[in-house]
Amino acid sequence: MTKANITLLTDFYELTMSNGYFETGIAEEIACFDLFFRRVPDGGGFAIMAGLEQVIDYLSNLHFDSEDIDFLRRKGGFSEAFLKYLETFEFGCDVWAVPEGTPIFPGEPIVTVRGPLLQAQYVETMLLLLINHQSLIATKANRIVRAAEGRAVMEFGTRRAHGASAAVLGARAAYIGGCVGTACTVCERDMGIAALGTMAHSWVQVFPSEYEAFSAYAKLYPDNCTLLVDTFSVIGSGVPNAIRVFKEQQPSRMGIRIDSGDVAYLTKKARAMLDDAGLADCKIVVSNSLDEWLIREILRQGAHIDSFGVGERLITAASDPVFGGVYKMAGVEVDGVLEPRMKLSENVEKITNPGFKNLYRLYDKGSGRMVADVITLTNEKAPAGDDYTIFDPSFTWKHKRLSNFVAKELRRQIYAAGKLVYESPPVAEIRSYCLAQIETLWEETTRFENPQPYYVDLSQELWELRSSLIAKYSGE
Amino acid sequence: MTKANITLLTDFYELTMSNGYFETGIAEEIACFDLFFRRVPDGGGFAIMAGLEQVIDYLSNLHFDSEDIDFLRRKGGFSEAFLKYLETFEFGCDVWAVPEGTPIFPGEPIVTVRGPLLQAQYVETMLLLLINHQSLIATKANRIVRAAEGRAVMEFGTRRAHGASAAVLGARAAYIGGCVGTACTVCERDMGIAALGTMAHSWVQVFPSEYEAFSAYAKLYPDNCTLLVDTFSVIGSGVPNAIRVFKEQQPSRMGIRIDSGDVAYLTKKARAMLDDAGLADCKIVVSNSLDEWLIREILRQGAHIDSFGVGERLITAASDPVFGGVYKMAGVEVDGVLEPRMKLSENVEKITNPGFKNLYRLYDKGSGRMVADVITLTNEKAPAGDDYTIFDPSFTWKHKRLSNFVAKELRRQIYAAGKLVYESPPVAEIRSYCLAQIETLWEETTRFENPQPYYVDLSQELWELRSSLIAKYSGE
Repeated sequence: MTKANITLLTDFYELTMSNGYFETGIAEEIACFDLFFRRVPDGGGFAIMAGLEQVIDYLSNLHFDSEDIDFLRRKGGFSEAFLKYLETFEFGCDVWAVPEGTPIFPGEPIVTVRGPLLQAQYVETMLLLLINHQSLIATKANRIVRAAEGRAVMEFGTRRAHGASAAVLGARAAYIGGCVGTACTVCERDMGIAALGTMAHSWVQVFPSEYEAFSAYAKLYPDNCTLLVDTFSVIGSGVPNAIRVFKEQQPSRMGIRIDSGDVAYLTKKARAMLDDAGLADCKIVVSNSLDEWLIREILRQGAHIDSFGVGERLITAASDPVFGGVYKMAGVEVDGVLEPRMKLSENVEKITNPGFKNLYRLYDKGSGRMVADVITLTNEKAPAGDDYTIFDPSFTWKHKRLSNFVAKELRRQIYAAGKLVYESPPVAEIRSYCLAQIETLWEETTRFENPQPYYVDLSQELWELRSSLIAKYSGE
Repeated sequence: MTKANITLLTDFYELTMSNGYFETGIAEEIACFDLFFRRVPDGGGFAIMAGLEQVIDYLSNLHFDSEDIDFLRRKGGFSEAFLKYLETFEFGCDVWAVPEGTPIFPGEPIVTVRGPLLQAQYVETMLLLLINHQSLIATKANRIVRAAEGRAVMEFGTRRAHGASAAVLGARAAYIGGCVGTACTVCERDMGIAALGTMAHSWVQVFPSEYEAFSAYAKLYPDNCTLLVDTFSVIGSGVPNAIRVFKEQQPSRMGIRIDSGDVAYLTKKARAMLDDAGLADCKIVVSNSLDEWLIREILRQGAHIDSFGVGERLITAASDPVFGGVYKMAGVEVDGVLEPRMKLSENVEKITNPGFKNLYRLYDKGSGRMVADVITLTNEKAPAGDDYTIFDPSFTWKHKRLSNFVAKELRRQIYAAGKLVYESPPVAEIRSYCLAQIETLWEETTRFENPQPYYVDLSQELWELRSSLIAKYSGE
C-alpha cells in the first residue's frame, strides 16, 4: 500500500485546539498524555495490544503539506501564524508503548506521549484509531483461535471488512492473535502473511457439472486441492464427486470445504464417507458465519473439522465491535516540573490516573505466570521486595500485598524527542510472542465466562496522588 | 487520499480461480454475476445503497503492476501464460448498479456485472467490500438520524473506526444517510462534507481552571463556541462557568457539550440554567455512546437536546456490524446464449435467482409511495397494466396482483464494455436524493420494530425459470 498523506485524517477539534494552544502561547508547554482502554470486549479477561507499527508509520510521516494548509485557510478560524507554523510542524515528542502482541488490561497506559502540548494533542485521533482497531481484531481473533483448540483458523473476512484498511490491517491483527493466514492476498505480498483460499461456488457453477468442476480444479492444483462441496448438496453430490476426483487424480494435499448447512451433522457424515473411501488424509474445512461461540458449540457436538475459515464475525469483531481506547492528559509541566492532571467526569469509571507513569508486570517466581500489573510514578523505584503493597484504582480500600515476584517494565521507548528509537519486529515474531505471552496467563483470566479480573493496581505513591487530586477537584 | 494499487486486495481464491479459468480455456466466456444482500441489519425494513463511487474508482484503476505479478510468480501455482495475460488485464465488462442513496431490499441485484468470466469473477471481493461497508454505515446512520427526529446528527466516530478507510468512507456513508457533518477533517477537504468539532477534555485540563479554559476558547472562536462542560461536574462547575463566559464575551453562536452522565437529567437541568441566565440561544450537544435506541429513549425522557454527536456505535454499526452482501453467478453464455445458473445450497434462503435480470420499482400512482420491487428477466417488458402478477421468491405459493402503478427501472448502466458511462453525483446530491427517497416509503417499512417486509417479487417468467432450475438441480 502506498502512503497517503493522512495528516488531516483527524478529529477537527485537534485542529481548533492546536490553533488555540498556539494562539494562547502554550503550544510548546510539555504535556503528557496516556492512551488506555476501559473495558475488554466480549466480557473477556484480557485484550491484545496491536497497531503500534502503523502508529510508527503515521508519526514518522506526519507533516502538513500545502494542500492541507490551503484547505484550513479556506475553511477559516485559524490564524496565519498557526498556519505558518504547520508548514514546519515536525513530531518531536517522546513516546512509550507496550509492544504489539502483549496481553493488556483496562486502565493501563499502553501508550504515553510526552512533548510539546500541541503535538502531543494533535496525534490523539490517529493513535486511537490505529490502536483501537487492531487491538480489537487481535483480541477477537485470539478468542476464536483458543476456541478452535489447536485447529488452524484462517481469516476469511475481506469482503465484510469495514473498508480497505480494515481488510488489510484487520488481517494483520488476526494473524497476531493466532490465525494462520488470510484470504487477503495483498497481506502476503506486503507483510508475508500467508494468503489462502481455493474456490467459490461460481467455479462449480460455471462447469457443466460439479464433477467436471472438481476434476478441472484437481488437475490445476494437485498440491493444494480443497474442493467446495455445498453448491448443490454436500452429502448427495459434493462429497461423492470430491471422492471420485481424489481417487482418480490423487492430489498430494486434499480437502473439502463446507460453507452452509448443519456443520456438525455434515462433517461427521462427510468424515465417515471420506474414511470409508480410504481418504483419511483429506481435511475438512468449515466456513459459515463462525465465531468463538459457534466453534466451541460445534466441536462440543463432535463435528469433525480440521480447520476453520472465519469471516465476517472476526474481521468486524461482530459481537462487540468497539475497542474503547481513550487518550487523556495526565500532566503538564509548569516551570519545568510536571504538574499532574486528571479528569473527574460524571462517570466514576471515567476518572483518569494522573502523572507521568511507569507500567510493570509482575510474574510469580515459582510458576512464571503473571500475577499483577502495577502502575507507578516514574520517579519511584521498580516494584520489589517480599512485602509490596498495591491498591485498586477504583475501589481504593482494596489493596494487596505481593511477594516472590519479578517485575518487568512492560513498555518500551518508541520515540525520543521525535527520533524513532525502536524497531517493530516482523509480524510473525509478534505473533509468536503473543501466543507465548498468553501461556503465562492463568486460566481464570483466559476463560470466556466471567473471567477473574486481573490486578492492575497502583503503587502507594500514585494512589495517594490520585486520592489527593480527587479531593482537590471535587472540592472545587 | 492518494490511490494505492489495491488490485491484490482480494481473496486469494479469485486468483486461483482466474488462473483456472484461463488454463481451462473459459476465461473469455461471457458470465453474469449479481451482487445482492439477504438481510437488513438491525432487523430494519430497508437498507441504503452506498459505495458505488468507490467501486468506480476501483474498476477504473484496476490493473496488475509488475510488483503484483512478480509476487504471484514467487508464490507459485500460476501459469506463465496467465501471468503474462495479467500484464495487459483491462476491465472490459458491463456493469449496472442501483444509484447511491437508494433504499434497497434483500434479494435485489443491486449490482450486476456481465463480461468475460475471469474479469467478472475477479472483481468480486472489492465490490463486496466497498458496497457492504458503506451500505452498512449509511443504513445505520439513517436509523440514528430518524431517531433524532429532525435534530442534527454529527458523525464523531473517527477514533473508533476500523482503520483509516472506515473513518473516511464511513463518514461519507453516514453523511449520505443523513448526518450533517463529521469530525473527520479530511472529509471536508476531499469530499466537501462539513468537518465539525470544538474541544476535548484536555483543553479544559491544561488551563489553570475551567473558567480560564472556557474564556480562552470563547476569545478565539466567538463565531462557534461550544464548550465541553463535563470535565469536573456539569451542574457544579461546567454550566456555571460556561454561562459566565457566554455573558462576558457574548459569542455569536454558543453551545455546551455533555459527554458523560445522566443525559436526560443533565440536559434538563442545564437547559433551565441557561434559560434562567437569558441564554435561550445556547444549544445543547450530547455525545456519549449514543445510538438510535438511546437517542429515542432520552428524547422520550424529555431530554433537552439540539444536536447529537454520535461516535462508535454509528461508525462501527455496533449493534449489527455486518452487511452480508454476496456476489453470485447468475448465468454463463454457451454458444452465444446466456444459460442461467443458480446455487441451491444447504440453506433455503441462500438459493439464488438465475438469469440476466432487470430491477423495477413500482410506485403507487395515487400516493407516489413505493409499493413493490419486481425482478424480471431482461428480455421481458417492463411491468405495466392493471393486473400485473408477481411472486414471492422464497414462498412461491405467495403471489400478488398489482394495479395503478408506475414502474421505474431502478438501476443505471455504469460501464459498457469497460467504458465508464455514468458520472457519480456529488455526495451532497446523493444525500438529498436519499432523504427524499425515504419519504416515499411507508411507515410500515421504516419503523424499527417488526417492519412489514417490503415486496421484492419475481415476474412470472423469472419465477418459472427459477422453479424449473430448482427441480433440475435438486434432481441431479
